[in-house]
Amino acid sequence: MKLGRGVLIGIGDDATAFSLSRGTVGVATIDTLVEGTHFDRSYMTYADIGWKAMAANLSDIAAMAGRPLLALVSLTLTGRQTVRAIDELYHGMRALADRYGVTIAGGDIVKGREFSITIAVIGECSRNNPGMRSGVKAGDAVLVTGELGASQAGLDILNSKFRIQNSELARKHFRPVPRIGEGLALARKFKLHGMIDISDGLSAELCHLCQESKCGIVIDQGALPIADAAITAARLLRKDPLEYCLASGEEYELLFTLPLNDAVRAKALLENMGTHCTIIGQAVKGRGLRIIGQDGKGRRLSPRGFRHF
Amino acid sequence: MKLGRGVLIGIGDDATAFSLSRGTVGVATIDTLVEGTHFDRSYMTYADIGWKAMAANLSDIAAMAGRPLLALVSLTLTGRQTVRAIDELYHGMRALADRYGVTIAGGDIVKGREFSITIAVIGECSRNNPGMRSGVKAGDAVLVTGELGASQAGLDILNSKFRIQNSELARKHFRPVPRIGEGLALARKFKLHGMIDISDGLSAELCHLCQESKCGIVIDQGALPIADAAITAARLLRKDPLEYCLASGEEYELLFTLPLNDAVRAKALLENMGTHCTIIGQAVKGRGLRIIGQDGKGRRLSPRGFRHF
Repeated sequence: MKLGRGVLIGIGDDATAFSLSRGTVGVATIDTLVEGTHFDRSYMTYADIGWKAMAANLSDIAAMAGRPLLALVSLTLTGRQTVRAIDELYHGMRALADRYGVTIAGGDIVKGREFSITIAVIGECSRNNPGMRSGVKAGDAVLVTGELGASQAGLDILNSKFRIQNSELARKHFRPVPRIGEGLALARKFKLHGMIDISDGLSAELCHLCQESKCGIVIDQGALPIADAAITAARLLRKDPLEYCLASGEEYELLFTLPLNDAVRAKALLENMGTHCTIIGQAVKGRGLRIIGQDGKGRRLSPRGFRHF
Repeated sequence: MKLGRGVLIGIGDDATAFSLSRGTVGVATIDTLVEGTHFDRSYMTYADIGWKAMAANLSDIAAMAGRPLLALVSLTLTGRQTVRAIDELYHGMRALADRYGVTIAGGDIVKGREFSITIAVIGECSRNNPGMRSGVKAGDAVLVTGELGASQAGLDILNSKFRIQNSELARKHFRPVPRIGEGLALARKFKLHGMIDISDGLSAELCHLCQESKCGIVIDQGALPIADAAITAARLLRKDPLEYCLASGEEYELLFTLPLNDAVRAKALLENMGTHCTIIGQAVKGRGLRIIGQDGKGRRLSPRGFRHF
């Protein structure tokens, strides 16, 4: 097996061995996806499932402004999965992992009554400049990459009478792309303040930043980057596109804060990389999350989006 | 949360951050235990399950002669587990983790139809002297820590009419102790050759060493350290104690090879630490595993013990 950056011993020994680059510290994360809870085989291929499981973990590394190095994969198989299905699953994981030079360096396969996939990813981030939930300062501008709402909108479309396979919407739901390069570029150029990825929905993640940083955040509703696909889906399904933008989980966009001067330059930096980036609000003293509507009035915003177990 | 050795950021951010000591490389492993496949709630408490899941991972780090630093825990809960049960599970994990200064630094909790626990452990081992399956040299003495057979014997007793709770046998099955200190002591004193832990049974692990090191191994049947408890159980159950010794998995003893001079000193070193250690055979040129019986005749030995999925 060819070993990627940082990996010294891959599959075949009792544990994987790895090294970290000078000036970095290790970062590690773990996530489990369970059939029925997190994915549905009726509209996702095994390759989609593998991709998505890898994306969830890589996005956590991106949120630390980290570089992922290796993944450990533990599969619980029921006996209904064919060898070809498992090959497809790994194909999906590798397709995303290879983009970032991440080695699948070890794992476990066990038997159970329910199909699930757990991935742990190990990476490295700058020792002095990690992306932290607790780094927001009052006065910071709040930025988000990409456009929001398409993941949940895609899922709703698939579950509706408008069920459309292989649409733009479904792709966002099935094949999210974590913002690894963007996180690394930001850490190289700026002293990072707050940073998190959007796995539970924008409003929930904003609340996490407020809680961990002991500050408040005010969002400008008119500035929110709602994905065109979410607007289209909302129209078809008679839903509110703003709800999609605020509550859609598994978007895997980066949500971060910087002093306004840096924020403007960061937006330009990311847009030069081809990544949409929007200033959506500001961190303030106090606590809690507020949104300023198009009528100019503020109201409290509660965390929505995916409720964990 | 108090953070242990090497851990920089624990639970509460997107990922855990850690650092490695000078002169070491990182090691990492992942294992899943599924209810029904790997444990049975009818005779194991949640604390036992937590302990055992942690032990399986720590033993993989021990087999690299590594020091474990942190654990990431992903639980799949069905809704039948009470908060108290989960507290007990963590209590069992922590009871073992605390022995080695290992921090439970992050994780995930998801909902499913089947209770399972996945743990990934990250540690560090000497950059120049890791314990490797592929390090066996022809002529090496083969050593094993502890006494073997009690784990499977304990399970068989629990499943028999002799079912005895809280016996010595059950404790070995429920509360195995990984050989972390022993692996570290060996790496400090000796240039390591082959090393592996016994999770699948002695004969299976000997075969792994042969395969990865491209050598053969000859075992002296009379030297095998069969646990007294396994002999007692074998008598009760009319089984062969030698089978227990060769096939019992989840023993989490260290199996390793060293040149004979070092082997004798290593045995003394470990026995000074209070850990039983036995020279059970020798590595040879060629391939395959053989055992010399008490009649002086050799015969081929096939891998037995736990069959993975």
